Amino acid sequence: MSVPEFRSVEPLLQPRSIAIVGASETGGDGWSRVLFHNLKEAGFPARTYLINPRRDELWDHKVYPDFASLPEAVDHALVVVPARAVNGVMRDGIAHGLKAATIYSAGFGEGRKGVGAEIGAELKQIIAESGISVCGPNCMGTFSTARDILLYPPSRLRGLSKGDVGGIFHSGGTLGYWFAQASLRGLGFSYAVSCGNEFGLDAADYLNFLVSDPDTRVIVAMLESIRRPDAFMAAARRAFDAGKPVTLVKLGGTERGKEQAKSHTGAVAVDDEVFNAVCDRYGITRCASIDDMVDAALALRYGRLPAGPRLAVVTSSGGAVGLTLDVVGAEGVTLAELSPATVTKMEALVPVDVDVHNPMDAGSALASDVERFCALCTLFAEDDNVDLIAIQGRIPLPDDKIKSPEPYIKLQAATDKPVLGFSRMVQNADENYRTFQHDAGMPFLFGIPATMRSMQALVRYGARRRAGIPSLPDPRGAEADLAPGRLSDRLAGLGVTPPREAFAADADQAAAAAADIGFPVALKVVSDEALHKTEIGGLRLNLTGEAAVRQAAAEMAASMGATPLRGFLVQEMIDGLEMLVGVRDDPQFGPLVVVGLGGVFVELLKDVSLRLAPVDEDEARVMLGELRGAAALDGFRGQAPRDVDALVRAIVGLSTFYLDHRTWLSDLEINPLMVLAEGEGVRAVDVRPVRRH
Amino acid sequence: MSVPEFRSVEPLLQPRSIAIVGASETGGDGWSRVLFHNLKEAGFPARTYLINPRRDELWDHKVYPDFASLPEAVDHALVVVPARAVNGVMRDGIAHGLKAATIYSAGFGEGRKGVGAEIGAELKQIIAESGISVCGPNCMGTFSTARDILLYPPSRLRGLSKGDVGGIFHSGGTLGYWFAQASLRGLGFSYAVSCGNEFGLDAADYLNFLVSDPDTRVIVAMLESIRRPDAFMAAARRAFDAGKPVTLVKLGGTERGKEQAKSHTGAVAVDDEVFNAVCDRYGITRCASIDDMVDAALALRYGRLPAGPRLAVVTSSGGAVGLTLDVVGAEGVTLAELSPATVTKMEALVPVDVDVHNPMDAGSALASDVERFCALCTLFAEDDNVDLIAIQGRIPLPDDKIKSPEPYIKLQAATDKPVLGFSRMVQNADENYRTFQHDAGMPFLFGIPATMRSMQALVRYGARRRAGIPSLPDPRGAEADLAPGRLSDRLAGLGVTPPREAFAADADQAAAAAADIGFPVALKVVSDEALHKTEIGGLRLNLTGEAAVRQAAAEMAASMGATPLRGFLVQEMIDGLEMLVGVRDDPQFGPLVVVGLGGVFVELLKDVSLRLAPVDEDEARVMLGELRGAAALDGFRGQAPRDVDALVRAIVGLSTFYLDHRTWLSDLEINPLMVLAEGEGVRAVDVRPVRRH
Repeated sequence: MSVPEFRSVEPLLQPRSIAIVGASETGGDGWSRVLFHNLKEAGFPARTYLINPRRDELWDHKVYPDFASLPEAVDHALVVVPARAVNGVMRDGIAHGLKAATIYSAGFGEGRKGVGAEIGAELKQIIAESGISVCGPNCMGTFSTARDILLYPPSRLRGLSKGDVGGIFHSGGTLGYWFAQASLRGLGFSYAVSCGNEFGLDAADYLNFLVSDPDTRVIVAMLESIRRPDAFMAAARRAFDAGKPVTLVKLGGTERGKEQAKSHTGAVAVDDEVFNAVCDRYGITRCASIDDMVDAALALRYGRLPAGPRLAVVTSSGGAVGLTLDVVGAEGVTLAELSPATVTKMEALVPVDVDVHNPMDAGSALASDVERFCALCTLFAEDDNVDLIAIQGRIPLPDDKIKSPEPYIKLQAATDKPVLGFSRMVQNADENYRTFQHDAGMPFLFGIPATMRSMQALVRYGARRRAGIPSLPDPRGAEADLAPGRLSDRLAGLGVTPPREAFAADADQAAAAAADIGFPVALKVVSDEALHKTEIGGLRLNLTGEAAVRQAAAEMAASMGATPLRGFLVQEMIDGLEMLVGVRDDPQFGPLVVVGLGGVFVELLKDVSLRLAPVDEDEARVMLGELRGAAALDGFRGQAPRDVDALVRAIVGLSTFYLDHRTWLSDLEINPLMVLAEGEGVRAVDVRPVRRH
Repeated sequence: MSVPEFRSVEPLLQPRSIAIVGASETGGDGWSRVLFHNLKEAGFPARTYLINPRRDELWDHKVYPDFASLPEAVDHALVVVPARAVNGVMRDGIAHGLKAATIYSAGFGEGRKGVGAEIGAELKQIIAESGISVCGPNCMGTFSTARDILLYPPSRLRGLSKGDVGGIFHSGGTLGYWFAQASLRGLGFSYAVSCGNEFGLDAADYLNFLVSDPDTRVIVAMLESIRRPDAFMAAARRAFDAGKPVTLVKLGGTERGKEQAKSHTGAVAVDDEVFNAVCDRYGITRCASIDDMVDAALALRYGRLPAGPRLAVVTSSGGAVGLTLDVVGAEGVTLAELSPATVTKMEALVPVDVDVHNPMDAGSALASDVERFCALCTLFAEDDNVDLIAIQGRIPLPDDKIKSPEPYIKLQAATDKPVLGFSRMVQNADENYRTFQHDAGMPFLFGIPATMRSMQALVRYGARRRAGIPSLPDPRGAEADLAPGRLSDRLAGLGVTPPREAFAADADQAAAAAADIGFPVALKVVSDEALHKTEIGGLRLNLTGEAAVRQAAAEMAASMGATPLRGFLVQEMIDGLEMLVGVRDDPQFGPLVVVGLGGVFVELLKDVSLRLAPVDEDEARVMLGELRGAAALDGFRGQAPRDVDALVRAIVGLSTFYLDHRTWLSDLEINPLMVLAEGEGVRAVDVRPVRRH
């Protein structure tokens, strides 16, 4: 795999000089005016020039006719001229040392009539040939809060707080709303980019920049598509290695989106679920909504990570407990089981009519006594069975007696586990909220669903930090391993056991082979032309004795008529649970392990679990647990529990074999892989390797 | 079914006089003080007395030693004495004409040690014998905003606006948060109750009161359990008949809750899904979170209902379109397909690079021009293919030019379809928001997920209003219909066709019968002792000719040994899709229709759809569409599409038959009901009636 290239974002986000090209009162729907005043209000954090051949002066500033007339080669041009004039501007700028440009203009072929498609193609060529760093076209610009440079036109983003959150948004409009709301919630920002149509720089470049940037500690993104998956994954790995959590919203999770994705990749591994596998692998928190992403960012930037999944929840109301329990099930939260010693200590702290549980309703008396409430929470934090704690935190109300965050600070000092506050509903995020949250030194999340999802984000990110991100090993296999007889042996050596079977040239040999394998057996016709065995009566099942095998073979031979017969395959009958296990090369994200229950499950319900390869045994077990029909492995319709250990080894074995031979294989699927009873292993009934073209 | 009784709530929520029993500076954790001052601040909207035998005066008011000393018999006592003193207070009050009481105190056996269980039992008896209207115990009281009476202690609820929303909350703490937040969102209130432990009045009584109350137009609730299902359903029907939408959050949807429910009802029809069926039947909007319930209440009180499900969404950003599409799939939203004429009209209104779609991104130019944006929305509203419209509404920002709601008012005047505004994220609900929403005369919802769910609430409520709530017909069947031979005939007459089959006394008769039925056939032993046919070799499948039938019958007879044999059942072999169709008597909510795919689907995935009986053909079709494996009915593994019409008739037929015979049946299930190819009907292979004990 070639090493992905990242392009330079510095001149775009850290310019020393800026030119507004197309500056006029009304140019770009008034955006040039707003951009200029954004810079002016910040005291011109970069030297700022105006370009417009039809003006001499504007806003008390000199206007230059072109790049050539400027007193210096500028770093960053803000291009707000109509699409038809953009390429001329770009050529002129490049000729005069321009390093970066933000092209706000639209009309490069993205609309319904494809208007401007030719101009767009030319623009792409200019960018590629010159290597200039371009944001857009059809974007709403960027902002560098860390440097007081606001190149996002709507003035409502003026005055955002500096901080450690950097952002990458494909939707410029949504960018503005998100940062305004995140700001109200107390987050501060380093850099943010609205990507637009990514003719030059793309999300992977911006992600790479934010990973290197010392001001950025948490990265948020709203993505529509991933233009360069390899570069994106390389940047995500850099973010992980740098300890900078990434949380994002990725569009395209709809049925409509899935339908579109279906035509591009396999029928089972649809695009959206593949992207979930990417997020899982790289420790990325994928949020269900942009509101959720605010809470996730607050939780992730807090810095504390849990050592395990066991959550304790302390509330001040039975209703909050009930609401929490409702969400816990849906979000897959693991609730901590309190140790008996903790329960005893707590019972001494709470009134006699208050039950000690997790989630806990501490009762209304403790709710209004924050010190005692936090003392109770400390007992939770001290329990070895607890990995992280969510407490119904009270931003002080006007009639509360205790307004100090001191009890929360003490609680956190008593533990190194994550302690997060939450309100049971969304509330107005006012100055009081922000100050209290800041002074308490812990996040206060909004509403129980978003809180539980944020807790799960911490749990998953913590688990990924402990496990690390495995690398794709270099292929070490030989092409000869793929020869028909050899393939089965090599897979068997990796735990992918084939059924016991033997080739027989005639009916007598078949009967003898069957006796050797053990009854009952299945008998299949072997013929170069017999592709659809059942259609020509070429498959007999459940033959229980030598006579039956001999008779069946004779009848099958007779029914073949003139079709040339090579012989018979005698195979043990297998009574197991049908699974599908496969590895396929996703065209975007590379080798992908697919596990599902076979038969109707995979065909009708698409009940599969996906991971990027390689997977180890722990991960294979988690995959099995994700299946909706997972209970089938515990035994089903009176069957004994299935041999999950053997299944796990087979999944890992197939993953390993595929990676070693991916030079020649694009897809390797076993369907069905029959899972026998505990201790009896698996049988790879049908192995289907697909060679690369 | 007996007619449910509703108890009088008027003296509780509309008292002319109130006594605070246990009044003191610190009594009831200071609640008596707060309650008094709540009333005082409102100018004593009810004549207010204090009772405490140990005081003469408090807060400049006379204190009475007991009810006997009061100058009048009071309507409503607020009881804040410790649990052990409550029963004495209640007896004293009842003896002196007390009509209602709110018992805030806890300690009636609800805690971990069961402390106070005896006092609790005695209290229940006092309430039952006297008929007094009691709220609680262990509650946080009520408020009657319509009458300025705030009997909910925390003072933060003082000054709530009057309005048309009435509430019933099992959690007193959550009640306060919900109404505070709902108030910020611009809702106003009539009455609200925190139910507590419902020793007397319960949610059904409060619901019944709110339905009758002229000030209440929309009812919200947060419920933990339904104490009297019949009364609750009767009140819900009254709410529906009165045109007052009910929206609620019902706890207990967790896996933990389901596990508990499982032990009480059937293995498939778990409690939580049954409650969904109840909500569906009575037009109740069940919300996933209490935040959602604010948006749902705003949408439902708007008053406009759609004539169908087809939603149009107009936004000002591609990001908002993508976010909407992501939610649309998950929430089952039906997007309107615009008529070509509408598209043509719109293309004239928007820039050439803007595509006309639904959801629509009108572009940033129109976003800042509210008048043109609303004109575009009017075109959506005028399209016959559109039933309701959600528009990304802009509460004016400080730098917006147009701050008037006039364009929104004009848009609504141009159509009678629901038009709702939404922001793409949660935002602070400030005075500006509330005023604009009020003046625009339409709701502005928060965030795309809650908006789409609220739209679906309107769609479902509108559909229920058109369909009405069917009544349970009186049983009209005869017990004789349940006799073994008769049952099959009667069901056949209702579309529940049995397999073709015949009884045969011996092998020859069996062969003849098989020829009559048509091959292949199955042959079953008929014997009083042969319950498990397969275990004694008493079942043969796929017999393809008379000789095979004769031989199989002889072998089966031989294998029976000494077991007396009555004969054989010859049955057509059926190649169809296995379904489960049943009606069972839910112990809480009555007859319940259950439809699912048979086999692994129902056993492993619990993939079933439930409705309260009766169901009609339209509803049966909707039920089938809800199955995760619904695609199996379209044809599967190369099969032809299944006979869905016959399946729908069979579901309705079974529902009808069960209701007619429910005097004697507690359960009537067909598993499997085989669904043949289109035009070939269904076959009820195994019909299992369960008689009531």
